[in-house]
Amino acid sequence: MIIVLKPHATKRDADRILARIEALGLKTLHMPGAERTVLGAIGDERVIAQLRLESDPLVEGVKPILAPYKLVSRELHPHDTIVDVGGMPVGGDRFVVFAGPCAIESLEQTRETGRCVKSAGAHGMRGGAYKPRTSPYSFQGLGRKGLRIIQKVSGELGLPAVTEVVQVRDVQAVATHAAAFQIGARNMQNYGLLKAIGQSRTPAILKRGMAANADDLLMAAEYILSEGNPNVILCERGIKTFETATRNTLDLNVIPYLKQRSHLPVLVDPSHGTGVRDFVTPMAKAAAACGADGLLVEVHHDPSAALSDGFQSLTPDGFQTLMRELKPVVEAVGRTL
Amino acid sequence: MIIVLKPHATKRDADRILARIEALGLKTLHMPGAERTVLGAIGDERVIAQLRLESDPLVEGVKPILAPYKLVSRELHPHDTIVDVGGMPVGGDRFVVFAGPCAIESLEQTRETGRCVKSAGAHGMRGGAYKPRTSPYSFQGLGRKGLRIIQKVSGELGLPAVTEVVQVRDVQAVATHAAAFQIGARNMQNYGLLKAIGQSRTPAILKRGMAANADDLLMAAEYILSEGNPNVILCERGIKTFETATRNTLDLNVIPYLKQRSHLPVLVDPSHGTGVRDFVTPMAKAAAACGADGLLVEVHHDPSAALSDGFQSLTPDGFQTLMRELKPVVEAVGRTL
Amino acid sequence: MIIVLKPHATKRDADRILARIEALGLKTLHMPGAERTVLGAIGDERVIAQLRLESDPLVEGVKPILAPYKLVSRELHPHDTIVDVGGMPVGGDRFVVFAGPCAIESLEQTRETGRCVKSAGAHGMRGGAYKPRTSPYSFQGLGRKGLRIIQKVSGELGLPAVTEVVQVRDVQAVATHAAAFQIGARNMQNYGLLKAIGQSRTPAILKRGMAANADDLLMAAEYILSEGNPNVILCERGIKTFETATRNTLDLNVIPYLKQRSHLPVLVDPSHGTGVRDFVTPMAKAAAACGADGLLVEVHHDPSAALSDGFQSLTPDGFQTLMRELKPVVEAVGRTL
Amino acid sequence: MIIVLKPHATKRDADRILARIEALGLKTLHMPGAERTVLGAIGDERVIAQLRLESDPLVEGVKPILAPYKLVSRELHPHDTIVDVGGMPVGGDRFVVFAGPCAIESLEQTRETGRCVKSAGAHGMRGGAYKPRTSPYSFQGLGRKGLRIIQKVSGELGLPAVTEVVQVRDVQAVATHAAAFQIGARNMQNYGLLKAIGQSRTPAILKRGMAANADDLLMAAEYILSEGNPNVILCERGIKTFETATRNTLDLNVIPYLKQRSHLPVLVDPSHGTGVRDFVTPMAKAAAACGADGLLVEVHHDPSAALSDGFQSLTPDGFQTLMRELKPVVEAVGRTL
Repeated sequence: MIIVLKPHATKRDADRILARIEALGLKTLHMPGAERTVLGAIGDERVIAQLRLESDPLVEGVKPILAPYKLVSRELHPHDTIVDVGGMPVGGDRFVVFAGPCAIESLEQTRETGRCVKSAGAHGMRGGAYKPRTSPYSFQGLGRKGLRIIQKVSGELGLPAVTEVVQVRDVQAVATHAAAFQIGARNMQNYGLLKAIGQSRTPAILKRGMAANADDLLMAAEYILSEGNPNVILCERGIKTFETATRNTLDLNVIPYLKQRSHLPVLVDPSHGTGVRDFVTPMAKAAAACGADGLLVEVHHDPSAALSDGFQSLTPDGFQTLMRELKPVVEAVGRTL
Repeated sequence: MIIVLKPHATKRDADRILARIEALGLKTLHMPGAERTVLGAIGDERVIAQLRLESDPLVEGVKPILAPYKLVSRELHPHDTIVDVGGMPVGGDRFVVFAGPCAIESLEQTRETGRCVKSAGAHGMRGGAYKPRTSPYSFQGLGRKGLRIIQKVSGELGLPAVTEVVQVRDVQAVATHAAAFQIGARNMQNYGLLKAIGQSRTPAILKRGMAANADDLLMAAEYILSEGNPNVILCERGIKTFETATRNTLDLNVIPYLKQRSHLPVLVDPSHGTGVRDFVTPMAKAAAACGADGLLVEVHHDPSAALSDGFQSLTPDGFQTLMRELKPVVEAVGRTL
Repeated sequence: MIIVLKPHATKRDADRILARIEALGLKTLHMPGAERTVLGAIGDERVIAQLRLESDPLVEGVKPILAPYKLVSRELHPHDTIVDVGGMPVGGDRFVVFAGPCAIESLEQTRETGRCVKSAGAHGMRGGAYKPRTSPYSFQGLGRKGLRIIQKVSGELGLPAVTEVVQVRDVQAVATHAAAFQIGARNMQNYGLLKAIGQSRTPAILKRGMAANADDLLMAAEYILSEGNPNVILCERGIKTFETATRNTLDLNVIPYLKQRSHLPVLVDPSHGTGVRDFVTPMAKAAAACGADGLLVEVHHDPSAALSDGFQSLTPDGFQTLMRELKPVVEAVGRTL
Repeated sequence: MIIVLKPHATKRDADRILARIEALGLKTLHMPGAERTVLGAIGDERVIAQLRLESDPLVEGVKPILAPYKLVSRELHPHDTIVDVGGMPVGGDRFVVFAGPCAIESLEQTRETGRCVKSAGAHGMRGGAYKPRTSPYSFQGLGRKGLRIIQKVSGELGLPAVTEVVQVRDVQAVATHAAAFQIGARNMQNYGLLKAIGQSRTPAILKRGMAANADDLLMAAEYILSEGNPNVILCERGIKTFETATRNTLDLNVIPYLKQRSHLPVLVDPSHGTGVRDFVTPMAKAAAACGADGLLVEVHHDPSAALSDGFQSLTPDGFQTLMRELKPVVEAVGRTL
């Protein structure tokens, strides 16, 4: 329920009401605003009804949250959320670009690619130490060694690093070595992992599953927020359709949908979204044009030698071109790069 | 086959070779260029092989066209095609916007909406006189009367008009009343209609079918070109996927794919592509950003009273906003609106 | 609207009421039953309401038809429709199998394949004279010559023939040479063609489009029935999905759905539905098990030499196996082969 | 690689060769046959090539495994695998039916539903103690208490029980309380979970993900086998498509595909596959007809009171009908129920 307090209600009044709600075992939300304070109560609506809050003299109105997702909904939280990723705000005026290799392969490769993307203007790094691969016989990532590499390079270059976490047992280690978790498409509904990340405060970039509706993505984000971690960034990375001209079908239509329904920032991954190097830059520009807050882009200093996904990775030159072409588009929609 | 002539080959030499190819019953293509002339021969490659053109002293080389589509392929025709729609060039520097109601309902409605879109800067009108509807009990369009209305308003406002044709028997009438045919998604593989339009010289906007791969769209365009009409404009309008947040899934990924494979102009229809009014403007900007040559947009002066597709039509104010927000994005990719 | 008459209402009473409805310009339906007569009125419900039929002393009740399709709905017509295809009833106790080549290539090929399928127990022939092909350069069928071949072989063997019609101008010729029209997936929403077939009395097998929902298929059938032709047979032939193990995804789930919503017979085409020869027989048995009324199967006496779709055509031996394995399954669901 | 030994090679010869392969760090497989012994070596083929096994006098031939999945492929293991689930063989002559509630709600509910399904002829029980739900606010299952309930009822009724595992930390407990793991569609590519189950010997029913190709499913199974657990049963449960007449699109086409490519047993879940109670029995019969080895079916003694998925659960009467109608179809394909 959304509980709107009267203008003259004080912080103490709000705390009193919140305490009554919490006493019933419900989650609460306290949102002081410029004009009036809004409280949220998440849980069984019949339980809340017992409190008859609408008859409290300091309550102006009580209304249900219509969306099945509560904490991620704009109904309860109308203003855009800005998530801080290692000092870089995501969701505000700046359009942010995280770039780097699909997989961390060595210190040299990570450092060289990191330097390239930094000099081209990237705001953060990406790179996987744990790689969920379709085949058990494919390269599975360097694991802890990879985490140490990305942390080292991130520190050297001053670029916050995003890296994937695939198992509950690695959540702590990833939080220690990186500025943000990435939750991959295959794990979007790995609820144990979502809950474990929800108990952290480290930001999480949650990628849409390949068969997930936009609302499924929002419900998955709700799992993280409902455990207490508000620092969630959504990410569109392509869905499965009949079309074979691209590896996946990057579904940019969900960008305005997600921004309409939720206050969370939204990134786009045009590398996995298309699976074709030549289409990454045009789709990156399209993502900026339709309202995304930033990108995750695969860059490799030598794509032909990459241990995974080389065919969709940009070269350093290609990434420079992307950044150069992206800038006027970002500015055309009133943001900065 | 692609036959490249030597630099000193004359028009007469080219005609001689073309005559030899045509004598075998094949279609030919004559493409004089700045430096050298290229000839095309479309048909059974074993037949062409009999001519041993590679041993002709004026032939520099002979190579197969690898794509299953020949005339629409960039292999044979590397430069962008510009199609003239009633005086408005589509496929060049200008990003063109055709706007208007889903269906022509009356002279007044068409005129009023036409004035709105013209004053907001549209380059052409759209509006259907023949409406293919899922239900036989839905409004099916005004037919010939609708054609006369759109022609009249188009003339008054000086806006070239695009209108749908759904049956072979209407091809002549539509060509007489409008500047361009629109072939709807449901008719993308109505080969009788494609061939009839191929025998016209009136431009045709060919919409992608809801289950059509990008290559299926190019093959459908090939039907029109192979009958002799080179004035084809492709149009992405959304495909069927599992996602229900939008009515269809506008697949912008095919824009760079189509531009890479074909020389034909490509439009985007964000109204049918999303089916949601609020998403039309963001997706229009995304279309411009990733390389589309223009838009088809539904606008109705009173969407709540529209006889079809009112929920996805922009209001006149909404269309003004679209044009205003589109301009900087179009300019950011080096074009004009 | 569905108008249920009282038990003692006579034919003359029914005619009087039908005349009142028709005077308003609406379509009517007269369905005398064992216990009472049901009338249908198709059209704007507000117009029908003017008649205040519920106050007529011979009317027991008036209720709306809830489905968007009216004439194809079980609401109005609860019993199964049986369509007579050249003497072979489709939709009754017998599970019917139409088999033959994808395309009519010659008299010899058609005759030889026809003999094979007849000796294996097929109830009818199939074969295309007009072939809608993705490429304009692929074999397009023998046209009128093909129609004469299939009519000749059909007569010789006593097997009713089904053949595809792709253009309005061929409707009359196909009706003359074949026992039933086939409307292909690409033409499921070619409304001009549907209406032309609706004005015939020749049965029509309407294939589901590759992006058509089950309800879209029922609406397309409604176009034919609403023009006056009640002899419509639905056909599932596979939809477009992300799965590439099969050419299309045969969607047998719609069989119980279509049988629940509509009284029309339903066939299954496992050849196009899977696109893989080895899967045709298992899926044919599955179709029989879940309630389909019969099959369309591609058989070629020499698939490796077929001019189209050879890889999904059964050999004569393969078809014999299909019929032999199908028989116990058909009998297990209480029908005969 | 597949290494075929000469007929006179002994067990000792095989062990010698296996030891050479293992010394290179590769996985091996020993498959003694009636006529000759076949060995498998899984790993980098260039490494195996170093051994020059083809020049070993006891080796008849060495050939690559072409499929990307090795241990699950029929290339290496041509005969059907039969998996023992608590004494019930799955994959042999008997068509096996596991039935029960979506979620374990209480001892009474589980016992009552268990009795119903046993008396109707089910071979095993199903029921979830851990429920992966789209919303964090939906019923999440009884957890350990649920495991104890299903174990108790399973013991009382003598029905082996299958139950879902969603987290690595519950693998041991589920193995202790149930006869088989179920891995849900959302976890098909939760590789940590697959590996943990691969280190068990308890059978695992692996459900296909909603966006997973058939080959993705086989690769996921390979993860389990490659860790050492050969007791894997595949399960088709519906994919995401544009069709909304059913909740998912049960894709029976993959049954013959999976049986052709792999030796593993294949079940079908028509409850989740269609999401509509009325379609469960027809699709169950279709599954039997096209070669599936059994079913997972949701049954609830009072579906309207079910805490999850009530609308797709059969009533006890409905399940009796399913079993009665299924029997003749199962027998028609030469198996027993």
